[in-house]
Amino acid sequence: MKQSLLFTKTRREDPKDETAKNAKLLIRGGYIHKELAGVYTYLPLGLLVLKNIEAIIREEIEKIGGLELQLTSLQTPEIWQKTDRFSDEIVDVWFKTKLKNNTELGLAFTHEEPLTNLLKSHINSYRDLPIYLYQIQTKFRNEIRAKSGILRGREFIMKDLYSFTKDQSALDTFYEKAKVAYHNIFRRVGLGDSTYLTFASGGVFSPYSHEFQTVCEAGEDIIYISDEKGIAVNKEVYNDEVLTDLGLKASDLREVKAVEVGNIFKLGTKFSEALDLFYLDEVGKKHFVVMGSYGIGLGRLLGTVIEVLSPNDGIVWPKSITPFLVHLLPLGDNPEVKKQTEVLYKKLIDQKISVLYDDRSLAPGEKLAEADLLGMSYRVVISEKTIAEEVIEVLDRNLGQTSKLPQAEFIAILNNEIKK
Amino acid sequence: MKQSLLFTKTRREDPKDETAKNAKLLIRGGYIHKELAGVYTYLPLGLLVLKNIEAIIREEIEKIGGLELQLTSLQTPEIWQKTDRFSDEIVDVWFKTKLKNNTELGLAFTHEEPLTNLLKSHINSYRDLPIYLYQIQTKFRNEIRAKSGILRGREFIMKDLYSFTKDQSALDTFYEKAKVAYHNIFRRVGLGDSTYLTFASGGVFSPYSHEFQTVCEAGEDIIYISDEKGIAVNKEVYNDEVLTDLGLKASDLREVKAVEVGNIFKLGTKFSEALDLFYLDEVGKKHFVVMGSYGIGLGRLLGTVIEVLSPNDGIVWPKSITPFLVHLLPLGDNPEVKKQTEVLYKKLIDQKISVLYDDRSLAPGEKLAEADLLGMSYRVVISEKTIAEEVIEVLDRNLGQTSKLPQAEFIAILNNEIKK
Repeated sequence: MKQSLLFTKTRREDPKDETAKNAKLLIRGGYIHKELAGVYTYLPLGLLVLKNIEAIIREEIEKIGGLELQLTSLQTPEIWQKTDRFSDEIVDVWFKTKLKNNTELGLAFTHEEPLTNLLKSHINSYRDLPIYLYQIQTKFRNEIRAKSGILRGREFIMKDLYSFTKDQSALDTFYEKAKVAYHNIFRRVGLGDSTYLTFASGGVFSPYSHEFQTVCEAGEDIIYISDEKGIAVNKEVYNDEVLTDLGLKASDLREVKAVEVGNIFKLGTKFSEALDLFYLDEVGKKHFVVMGSYGIGLGRLLGTVIEVLSPNDGIVWPKSITPFLVHLLPLGDNPEVKKQTEVLYKKLIDQKISVLYDDRSLAPGEKLAEADLLGMSYRVVISEKTIAEEVIEVLDRNLGQTSKLPQAEFIAILNNEIKK
Repeated sequence: MKQSLLFTKTRREDPKDETAKNAKLLIRGGYIHKELAGVYTYLPLGLLVLKNIEAIIREEIEKIGGLELQLTSLQTPEIWQKTDRFSDEIVDVWFKTKLKNNTELGLAFTHEEPLTNLLKSHINSYRDLPIYLYQIQTKFRNEIRAKSGILRGREFIMKDLYSFTKDQSALDTFYEKAKVAYHNIFRRVGLGDSTYLTFASGGVFSPYSHEFQTVCEAGEDIIYISDEKGIAVNKEVYNDEVLTDLGLKASDLREVKAVEVGNIFKLGTKFSEALDLFYLDEVGKKHFVVMGSYGIGLGRLLGTVIEVLSPNDGIVWPKSITPFLVHLLPLGDNPEVKKQTEVLYKKLIDQKISVLYDDRSLAPGEKLAEADLLGMSYRVVISEKTIAEEVIEVLDRNLGQTSKLPQAEFIAILNNEIKK
């Protein structure tokens, strides 16, 4: 795409009302716009990144059998009263609203209740199980404070996967598959090295739940990492008994701040009992469906990528989620520079490589500064000098390496990237 | 996909609390689930149709220069007070809610105000225009009654496109392009023959707005169609003066009920003046940005397709939006039937043709009845009889024609369909 057609403008100054690095950089780059604290519009560039993350998540979740559906935000009290979760005293993050006839409704902060309820029309027999359903959509949470940019939103997009199985053993099997899918997702968006499966508080049906925590100064959680085992323990359950249970020694662990980028939880029959979701087994005996839930906040994940991988003064996008793989910058007024840039631009498009072409009449310094803020994975400079040398200048932002190479060689590298 | 993996179940009986054909058929087929009146969950099959419609709309809107972004549902009063639209006395479809600190928020029923407001950070000069922005996302409208199924929702997905141009002439030019894009969209989803560009009430900046009205008994509007000119007039502006203005004669028109499936509107500077969105021209003079808006409700469009193209007892999906192009039905217990079906299933998947394979052990009558309710564009039957004749039996639901032909011939027809 030509940059002249991209309406968003970058800013030199940090927005005054943001303290989080992710929000500062994303607003300065024209990726997002703040409507109110914790509520952000995704501008075209930001939406491209969000869709790339969405595609990775969708692919990994469908690989383990997830079927997508789309639930509603408006929620009637009846269903939630059965689990005792409609009351504001018990759940303190509801946004509530009203129909014209004064019926109170809630805006879904999660979807266990409506999904469990609707499955009553679709599950009768053991033959109907297992089912794995997921949604990628907006949730609302009435947070008192929201000052971490897109790490903690009042309105935000989540992927929630829910498993419905016959028994604990089928749940356990799927739960392990979900762990693998989650590791794949975090690796693919560039957080593999800094994300740990973390033991957190469980419930009636399971001694622990599992969080995926990414080491990050901006995080709200404290975790204790065992580098040897590649796992961690959340501070909330960190005690001698748990360490013994997990075979860990306090002296081997390091304490760090972290962001919870995902969590998986064995719900057991908590919701199916409350909402009466059961099936009949081979001999006609009634059993409650055994459930698990598996969540990832897409905005939080995007924000964490920025917090972990970008320096304070400009974004560095991993190749897997960059809005454009290549940022093409012709520098100077020489018509030959423009001509050669347009030839390369066309070649990249023909090869289906996503490219942002800075076709504007700006000084080289301005173009370079803006490119450093926007952070596309590869910055390619074409100038009188590179033409004289019969090369292009390529900055691989993730490696922080600049190299001069012939066009054809660069295109070969990109095609290799895409195939990965 | 194998039908045994699709969790939704069909129903023989109409749901008791629905009067609209679209809701009855979609609920019976397991496409949607009703949460409350006007609020529906899209089950996996329904979401497939919705995504097909979304893809067509996205393609046509990007063809005329639309850039996608994603706005927020939560809205602060300040922006809307500038256009005098936050008050419930003036806008009677708001859902309102509150932050913990008691600040009142609204759930967006449309997005002119926030979009106009955010563009103030991105438009300065005539060089920044034109811009065409669109969103495909949820809107909330607090309707008193909602009994038309997905034709009129309290929570529903809309595509809204907004144009921002320098002057009236640039708006007029884009407006004509949008008309063409809209005609393309309605034609592609199967409503081309029954949808009319309809003159409706305008505003300060334009004598008329334009609706796209689809002839349909379930519609809430009355329109007067000129078959000769291929246009229509909405009853709300139908009078002698308007007929003269449009060169129409009352005697040449026919009165019908219709559903408004889209509308386009020249907003002029109504919102840019209220929110102070301006640009500086070549000589530094200030002008307000000239706007247009272009909406399509995706659920309403889906519902209208059902109302217009499906008989009362089962769905008929147009090939462009069918959840699966082919529904593959092996009938009977003969192992050779199963074997040949699986061979064809694999062939279709290899050719990237979307196919639902009824792999369940059900009586032929049950399979056929369910297929007739679900309405995939092509139903393919394989039985002992078809095997003996070395053919498959293909029902083209849109033509209502059954034919017997060799597998290879059918695959050639499908490949032709996909290329279209």
